[in-house]
Amino acid sequence: MEKVFASVITIGDELLIGQVIDTNSAWIAQELNKQGILVKHRVAVGDVWQDIWDALDAEQQQADIILITGGLGPTADDITKPLLCEYFGGKMVMHQPTLDHVTNIFENILKRPMIERNRKQAEVPDTCTVLLNERGTAPGMLFEKNGKIFISMPGVPHEMKWIMQHHVLPLVQEKFQGGFVAHRTLLTAGVGESFLAERIKDVESLLPSELKLAYLPNYGMVRLRLTGWSTNKVELNSLIDYHFQQLKDAVQDILITDQDEPVEVAIGKLLKEKGQTVSTAESCTGGYIAHLLTSVAGSSDYYMGSVVSYAYDLKEQLLGVDHEEMAQHGAVSEKVVTQMVKGALANMKTDYAVAVSGIMGPGGGLPDKPVGTVWMAVASKHKVLAKKMHFRFDRKRNIELTATQALLFLRELIVDKT
Amino acid sequence: MEKVFASVITIGDELLIGQVIDTNSAWIAQELNKQGILVKHRVAVGDVWQDIWDALDAEQQQADIILITGGLGPTADDITKPLLCEYFGGKMVMHQPTLDHVTNIFENILKRPMIERNRKQAEVPDTCTVLLNERGTAPGMLFEKNGKIFISMPGVPHEMKWIMQHHVLPLVQEKFQGGFVAHRTLLTAGVGESFLAERIKDVESLLPSELKLAYLPNYGMVRLRLTGWSTNKVELNSLIDYHFQQLKDAVQDILITDQDEPVEVAIGKLLKEKGQTVSTAESCTGGYIAHLLTSVAGSSDYYMGSVVSYAYDLKEQLLGVDHEEMAQHGAVSEKVVTQMVKGALANMKTDYAVAVSGIMGPGGGLPDKPVGTVWMAVASKHKVLAKKMHFRFDRKRNIELTATQALLFLRELIVDKT
Repeated sequence: MEKVFASVITIGDELLIGQVIDTNSAWIAQELNKQGILVKHRVAVGDVWQDIWDALDAEQQQADIILITGGLGPTADDITKPLLCEYFGGKMVMHQPTLDHVTNIFENILKRPMIERNRKQAEVPDTCTVLLNERGTAPGMLFEKNGKIFISMPGVPHEMKWIMQHHVLPLVQEKFQGGFVAHRTLLTAGVGESFLAERIKDVESLLPSELKLAYLPNYGMVRLRLTGWSTNKVELNSLIDYHFQQLKDAVQDILITDQDEPVEVAIGKLLKEKGQTVSTAESCTGGYIAHLLTSVAGSSDYYMGSVVSYAYDLKEQLLGVDHEEMAQHGAVSEKVVTQMVKGALANMKTDYAVAVSGIMGPGGGLPDKPVGTVWMAVASKHKVLAKKMHFRFDRKRNIELTATQALLFLRELIVDKT
Repeated sequence: MEKVFASVITIGDELLIGQVIDTNSAWIAQELNKQGILVKHRVAVGDVWQDIWDALDAEQQQADIILITGGLGPTADDITKPLLCEYFGGKMVMHQPTLDHVTNIFENILKRPMIERNRKQAEVPDTCTVLLNERGTAPGMLFEKNGKIFISMPGVPHEMKWIMQHHVLPLVQEKFQGGFVAHRTLLTAGVGESFLAERIKDVESLLPSELKLAYLPNYGMVRLRLTGWSTNKVELNSLIDYHFQQLKDAVQDILITDQDEPVEVAIGKLLKEKGQTVSTAESCTGGYIAHLLTSVAGSSDYYMGSVVSYAYDLKEQLLGVDHEEMAQHGAVSEKVVTQMVKGALANMKTDYAVAVSGIMGPGGGLPDKPVGTVWMAVASKHKVLAKKMHFRFDRKRNIELTATQALLFLRELIVDKT
């Protein structure tokens, strides 16, 4: 059995001028991977006839399945559909089920009159198989040529995902009984990439050729991913499990989770297991820690709430920070962040709390507290810990790093055996 | 003068299995655009020798400048540097200024012993011009071949950005006095893409061939972007300004901002102008509205804080929601969200407040309040408005949509002339 390869072509000027970040490709790759199909190549082109045409020519040399997103809207800049019509021969015809669906959307959901542009959304090349799009007006389209499969989908992420889940993935599974790809991922914190590499070099040197190890550093953590490909699922799993265990043993003391999950999910699992709760008191992160914790489904079981006290007054009023302490030491200080975390624990009646206060920039720096200075504290009923950190990036990254480091600090307290 | 084209090659298995979302390409495209250089093509390949080699071969057919990110780390999966060494001929040599820099990082910042792997970071092909990387240990490298420029940079976003800003962009500006690209962007809300197209079709049909209009729908809003390219900057600006004004006139009543900025930035400008303040009371969005508002530099001038009341108790205690009302109507109700917004306004002493309460899923739905049901309210000293909305996506998108719609609702109140 041969490996099955896919290429992803994303179409749209907005991708090339940088106005939009492409999140579709990552999702598509993840889903195809689960089916044992490897994305070999990904390419982004503008809404330009020749560039799209060339990409179609080039990608079919590399891949068995070519997934195309974008350029299917009802407006003049969307040229993908007429181009596909010409590329695969044939002429445009009205597709009745799609027209019924579009009509229904306008009559019963949008409750607006339908215009000619909307009707045109239901026209497709007569050389394609239509993949109905329950989530929007532009249908997916499947073409076959030279033994290759081409699938065109809208670029709107939730519409693309719906078509993938309801049409493309089942079809791909049936058509290509591809090999199996397995991934095992773990997350470490506190040791840099090169030191980690040094530490696990024995494990790495013993990896068989079917397995590949990748280092993915981010936010002061390093994710390690082991990937394998095989036609024998059972053998693959046992091989990858064995080597993954070796890897885990080598990083035991710096391991955050042995799943492909962010630290907020790992914390959620710990709290659920213990039946405990957490609250947050945020100044400089402005709600981002709360957002990370509540992005996890089911977080209302253990997450109680947050006081985002951007203003001084609110630190006093909602968290009980002492006015004099704040006047004397400033809001970015050990004293204040400790009072914030105690205030959160007491006022929101949780088992744990985490608090941060800092200066994220670009403005607000002081001679003794430059931009990037952060005090963070974590507390349980038995213990309060505080530490100072310093980040030297832009506002966005400083906020993200502060939130991530605060969550790592919270996790340390939760897993503390003392 | 010819148009100057660029291609971006991103290298890394993590991009192809979907573990990481590529944000570098968008940023690079934005920066090159400002210099009049158009990104024509973007391609992602894995850490695979042949695939990287082929991409280098292919992209130089399309572009004058080839920007390469990723694969420069100190670990075994990083093969970009030896590959470039072979591709451009030459041999690896130690680059003393980089070695000094790496040594300094270890001695004075990390305060850790340096290992051989780290030393190797300072080796480069002798055919390249080194672009010192102040932000990390892997230097940028510039190669020239057949009149094309190839630049390799680390994939870590803040390192790549530093090298771009300090080396690549100045160099590109000097070398290619490219044409000028101009963009004008506006944001509308409340009218779908196809109706918007119908409304502005007269303006669109009168656009000269140098200008191109794109529709970028997202979160229930549509961004319209006008792009032009010319060798004459003055003519280009006056042409694009004229047509942009026509466009603005046609969407006057649904215009959120005539800048390329998100709604939270537009709100910040309004509040600064008026010298007014805002606070938030969030349930289902879990701090995401606060995060959006505080992601804007200088937001502490007008943003006071938020109560993220995930738990029922906190709605009562911190926002003064009535226990009986909540028991009778549930937390997701007009009564409760109205009390929340009033509580925020009073307790955080702001001119405006916004509150949301809803069910984001996947769990928590009720027969009369299915997943996606949201009540939102906005208040000033003179007015309280509430509305119910319904979103039908996944948790992440429901949170994002709720936050965006709440901000649009807040903006409506702020700009209200009554």
